Amino acid sequence: MTDLAAVKAALRTQAVETPSWAYGNSGTRFKVFAQEGVPRTPQEKLEDAAKVHEFTGVAPTVALHIPWDRVDDFGALAKFADDHGLKLGAINSNTFQDDDYRLGSVCHPDAAVRRKALDHLLECVDIMDATGSADLKLWFADGTNYPGQDDLSARQDRLAEALAAVYARLGDGQRMLLEYKFFEPAFYATDVPDWGTAYAHCLKLGPKAQVVVDTGHHAPGTNIEFIVATLLREGKLGAFDFNSRFYADDDLMVGAADPFQLFRIMYEVIRGGGFTADVAFMLDQCHNIEAKIPAIIRSVMNVQEATAKALLVDRDALAAAQRAGDVLEANAVVMDAYNTDVRPLLRELREEQGLAPDPIAAYRSSGWQERIVAERVGGRQAGWGA
Amino acid sequence: MTDLAAVKAALRTQAVETPSWAYGNSGTRFKVFAQEGVPRTPQEKLEDAAKVHEFTGVAPTVALHIPWDRVDDFGALAKFADDHGLKLGAINSNTFQDDDYRLGSVCHPDAAVRRKALDHLLECVDIMDATGSADLKLWFADGTNYPGQDDLSARQDRLAEALAAVYARLGDGQRMLLEYKFFEPAFYATDVPDWGTAYAHCLKLGPKAQVVVDTGHHAPGTNIEFIVATLLREGKLGAFDFNSRFYADDDLMVGAADPFQLFRIMYEVIRGGGFTADVAFMLDQCHNIEAKIPAIIRSVMNVQEATAKALLVDRDALAAAQRAGDVLEANAVVMDAYNTDVRPLLRELREEQGLAPDPIAAYRSSGWQERIVAERVGGRQAGWGA
Amino acid sequence: MTDLAAVKAALRTQAVETPSWAYGNSGTRFKVFAQEGVPRTPQEKLEDAAKVHEFTGVAPTVALHIPWDRVDDFGALAKFADDHGLKLGAINSNTFQDDDYRLGSVCHPDAAVRRKALDHLLECVDIMDATGSADLKLWFADGTNYPGQDDLSARQDRLAEALAAVYARLGDGQRMLLEYKFFEPAFYATDVPDWGTAYAHCLKLGPKAQVVVDTGHHAPGTNIEFIVATLLREGKLGAFDFNSRFYADDDLMVGAADPFQLFRIMYEVIRGGGFTADVAFMLDQCHNIEAKIPAIIRSVMNVQEATAKALLVDRDALAAAQRAGDVLEANAVVMDAYNTDVRPLLRELREEQGLAPDPIAAYRSSGWQERIVAERVGGRQAGWGA
Amino acid sequence: MTDLAAVKAALRTQAVETPSWAYGNSGTRFKVFAQEGVPRTPQEKLEDAAKVHEFTGVAPTVALHIPWDRVDDFGALAKFADDHGLKLGAINSNTFQDDDYRLGSVCHPDAAVRRKALDHLLECVDIMDATGSADLKLWFADGTNYPGQDDLSARQDRLAEALAAVYARLGDGQRMLLEYKFFEPAFYATDVPDWGTAYAHCLKLGPKAQVVVDTGHHAPGTNIEFIVATLLREGKLGAFDFNSRFYADDDLMVGAADPFQLFRIMYEVIRGGGFTADVAFMLDQCHNIEAKIPAIIRSVMNVQEATAKALLVDRDALAAAQRAGDVLEANAVVMDAYNTDVRPLLRELREEQGLAPDPIAAYRSSGWQERIVAERVGGRQAGWGA
Repeated sequence: MTDLAAVKAALRTQAVETPSWAYGNSGTRFKVFAQEGVPRTPQEKLEDAAKVHEFTGVAPTVALHIPWDRVDDFGALAKFADDHGLKLGAINSNTFQDDDYRLGSVCHPDAAVRRKALDHLLECVDIMDATGSADLKLWFADGTNYPGQDDLSARQDRLAEALAAVYARLGDGQRMLLEYKFFEPAFYATDVPDWGTAYAHCLKLGPKAQVVVDTGHHAPGTNIEFIVATLLREGKLGAFDFNSRFYADDDLMVGAADPFQLFRIMYEVIRGGGFTADVAFMLDQCHNIEAKIPAIIRSVMNVQEATAKALLVDRDALAAAQRAGDVLEANAVVMDAYNTDVRPLLRELREEQGLAPDPIAAYRSSGWQERIVAERVGGRQAGWGA
Repeated sequence: MTDLAAVKAALRTQAVETPSWAYGNSGTRFKVFAQEGVPRTPQEKLEDAAKVHEFTGVAPTVALHIPWDRVDDFGALAKFADDHGLKLGAINSNTFQDDDYRLGSVCHPDAAVRRKALDHLLECVDIMDATGSADLKLWFADGTNYPGQDDLSARQDRLAEALAAVYARLGDGQRMLLEYKFFEPAFYATDVPDWGTAYAHCLKLGPKAQVVVDTGHHAPGTNIEFIVATLLREGKLGAFDFNSRFYADDDLMVGAADPFQLFRIMYEVIRGGGFTADVAFMLDQCHNIEAKIPAIIRSVMNVQEATAKALLVDRDALAAAQRAGDVLEANAVVMDAYNTDVRPLLRELREEQGLAPDPIAAYRSSGWQERIVAERVGGRQAGWGA
Repeated sequence: MTDLAAVKAALRTQAVETPSWAYGNSGTRFKVFAQEGVPRTPQEKLEDAAKVHEFTGVAPTVALHIPWDRVDDFGALAKFADDHGLKLGAINSNTFQDDDYRLGSVCHPDAAVRRKALDHLLECVDIMDATGSADLKLWFADGTNYPGQDDLSARQDRLAEALAAVYARLGDGQRMLLEYKFFEPAFYATDVPDWGTAYAHCLKLGPKAQVVVDTGHHAPGTNIEFIVATLLREGKLGAFDFNSRFYADDDLMVGAADPFQLFRIMYEVIRGGGFTADVAFMLDQCHNIEAKIPAIIRSVMNVQEATAKALLVDRDALAAAQRAGDVLEANAVVMDAYNTDVRPLLRELREEQGLAPDPIAAYRSSGWQERIVAERVGGRQAGWGA
Repeated sequence: MTDLAAVKAALRTQAVETPSWAYGNSGTRFKVFAQEGVPRTPQEKLEDAAKVHEFTGVAPTVALHIPWDRVDDFGALAKFADDHGLKLGAINSNTFQDDDYRLGSVCHPDAAVRRKALDHLLECVDIMDATGSADLKLWFADGTNYPGQDDLSARQDRLAEALAAVYARLGDGQRMLLEYKFFEPAFYATDVPDWGTAYAHCLKLGPKAQVVVDTGHHAPGTNIEFIVATLLREGKLGAFDFNSRFYADDDLMVGAADPFQLFRIMYEVIRGGGFTADVAFMLDQCHNIEAKIPAIIRSVMNVQEATAKALLVDRDALAAAQRAGDVLEANAVVMDAYNTDVRPLLRELREEQGLAPDPIAAYRSSGWQERIVAERVGGRQAGWGA
């Protein structure tokens, strides 16, 4: 029997970090469709993020991306966030948009390019010091497009060297989160293609280095919740980059493509102690064609709904069925939780917290969208451009 | 026993069409790395294409992409091509880079957007009339990102309507080539996702409508040569868009990722009568990080090498082994051709045609690259931008 | 607003066909694990199927597989079914378990083998005449393992010839249902690998030939509901073989791997008119490690739940959002139906029909499992063996 | 410039281990096609393996599979091998064909089953002591078919416990080689699904534990040579199970599906020092439809040809191009080696070693096939049956 009060208590502790760049324009290699009302500055992104938190109650932090969110005074930006009820979250580095990075950044054959990339990573730690961010999130677009283009193993050596230098720079309470990605933008080999590679590097670096699981960064058919369970078992799961995909790194709203998978992932997080531990739940999405703020609200709600379902799993009944080798009953226990409609529970929870029960409707009737469309005219809309 | 003279004779008839856009800049959604010496105009693209043909002898036509290659006077452009030893090839439409096309073009729910897209397609036929191009190549980025976003079947109705209107506009000797693509830029459903969908539309349209096989547009594990054989058997194979990929639509140099697959495809083309029939062999690639002109020369050579190997298959021995049910021997006959090093044969062929035996070396020593780097300064480099 | 009475009325018409072979033993190439109580005869399979229908109310027909279900008197078997409240459904041919079929059946290079296979197919139509079955379901294991092993196109010619001969033999009210499969047991090329190939053959054969969609027979990432919509639009969707998979043709319980996909498929069936038309909903599963009868009951219920959710989609609201180009709202309408817990509705429906609200519990307390375990001792358990 | 004498010298040191089970019957879940002349005993398998070594000169060892190759006196079997010019190679355990293993072996929820499985693994080490085999190769079919069926993390604990017990039993000069597999026969989660999981276990066990890369055990699109390079860099690559596949674990002849991939793998082996180190090159294939002995000869030759090509890579020229960031030139250096026809070199090498230049032809004219077909009549043909 599941204890509903405990489920609600757990849900009250949940926090989903939204990424500053999801509020700006994004697209595919074919086209970036601009949307009205998109922020022009890091501050405007934070204003939008504050709305997401206002209506969901579970999105209190915002990840920054450097240089997209570079400001002169990061302390002031942290204060701005604080004034809007937010904290600044992970600092995300960018070593893929400078012309020098055509053949890689920290894995580049040229030491000068590697040095430039490393300097950027170290700068990101400086920014963490200024913002009070605990996490440095590293994703490298490094890789090769053609067999032979570069030496796969030498690139690992260069990567290890850069990571060690950054690791040495981390202060107390700061972590390095290393992300892996199956492919794109490199097409033959990426330098951190899978969790095993990220894990092996983090293991050598030490306890402050952990792995990021981006749910869109795997080969077709990969059992992501197995990886989650394994990394938790090894103490090396640092964070999620949530999004969903049908094919590659589609970066759609989390839960949109395979909500059952999201539920299974959240179940393993909870089962493995990751829900109460230091695992960060971040979104990393691109709202290429849909309205951005409501899409982010929906995504946060999708994580919340999957979490609620995972919390509802009757773990005693499950353990009993597993011990008995009753395949159908064990599966049925899990499916029973998944098939439950948790939306009434979450509406109730929101009302208990003084929130509107339907965050999307509340946002739509708040007038914010109309206001930003009217006010954010001129200037340069935020996007992936450096 | 294979007749080497016949192989050479067949190779002399080969023609590979290069795409104007491969000479310009391209990239991923993360970054477009600009290269020095890249063309600024359609004319400069043709100058580069002329070099590819000059050194390979088998790249006599160039595909255009509208609006990227829009000029005031297409007749003059055709004349320019002719003066450079080239002909203008397929006209490629673009209904994906206008803000109106956020939710599709000919499949868009709004009739006004559909009309705009159709007008563009009809304009492309006008351009064909002016350039003397025989082929209209249609690839639609249309699709949906989220379940429910639009009605899958209604979109097919709209697509069929637009195709019928374009088909009706085709003149004598003009074809419509319909391309399919598994995913990207749409992530949930593309409106022409597979050869079956393209085939079903072409069948209803009539004999002037045929299917384009882009070798990068399939689900993982798809047996492309089977599709080639099937479309040839049905009389519906119109053209190839050649490129290679490890994962998705990587658009790498054809033959770079899986040269054995390219050989198998060319074998089915030859076996199915496609080599002598009206099948167009086009490249559609992105040279994001490698030098563009030599990459295109290499790609043309890769097609040539795969063709030579496919022509070398001892078809009598193969048929005998197949009839006898000798799996190993039949496979060995095919592998024997594939394992042959055909580069000496092709060097010999080039010399017989008055060409340098090594096109890459010849290009490198020609001074062209240095010249365009020096001369093409200023202006706006060609790329995918509308 | 969805009309609940109409939803219930539609659900009352639903029929899911269970396959005789799912009641017998099955396994992987590594091991077939025998289970206690498994049927030894076609009659015992029908007894089990009768239980599934008794407790679910929506499984009134049973598919046979020849020769696994060969009996001396098929008329008597039909009578036996009738006496147990069932009808005999589709006749499934088997041209893959005779030593002669090592290199194929109707596509085999040797005409004698092809003739033998054809004779078997024609015998299956004879059986249909005896059982009153309307559907001949054809799945061919034909294909090749190595490039060059056989001529891909010649095999299509042989296939077409056999299909034409069988088609000519069909009587009034009889259909040929042609199944496609991406791979397995052939590994290089299967002779009917995709819906396009099956469609092209059926189109030439005529209106009695239609395509079977087995939900486990696609390349990774394939959008199955798109195929469903397309085949319905073309009038060529004949039947489903339902099951679920994470990787290949796993043949797990339908709805177990991706329940959201099953819902999307059922939505397209309903939207395309397939729910009221002559589309047969069959299971084709292997219960390798779980108890067979309750697994089949669960599978039938999963189809029913997905159907109920699909019927709940507010199609007016959906159409309005689609017309308006409101991506998030259109998706939300679909997700709202999917997120609904339909189990109370289905329990209510069962009670209205005089059934127990929980079919699994009812089966478990019926004593049937204990009885068959006790009684079905000795003899040869049914399985895939010829 | 590549030193041909050094290439030949390296090739002379090559050894490929053939698996005893590849000489017996195998098949898919649909059918095992028996072949004439197939061995009935471990001794007859060794006789066939001796022929493969006789004609290729590079297949001096044979892997055993327990219990398929169980004999009363393993010392005598080793002597029998020795008398036929062979050594016994790796001992392969089997914990998947007993009815007790329906829900797993060392990961089973029931401690009694785990104990039984562990006892089998320990028995395999006993056999190693008797045969003088250095390698214990462990592949576990363990996994789950349905979400919730068992606890993913608890299964890892059980696995770790069993591996530790086996590891403790290993003598000097004995290794444990742990194999991973993406899926099959388990369909939801396999307990060692990827190299990262195998690596993490081996790391904890110690230096005698290393990872086996089976080339057919990966997700679609996985860059296998990257894994090879990484494991070599970490000192954890123990062995290969070579085979090839188009889709899943097809177990076709190595080099048959993607010879370029095999070449790239061999290049990374050589580059990473694996060719001279203790990496075992084993075949693990199923010759379901083709003649077994010549298929194995062909497979050995395919490995040899890929090795020769990889040895031919001009590593100085490659390193120079890589350092210069010349993508096309670096790729060209690799492709130049791959495109070389190494068959004349290998024929020459064989003749220098007193072998026939064409092993397949030599086998065919040796009369062995006719002899075993004639003599091996009656008895029970070897296969996967326990």
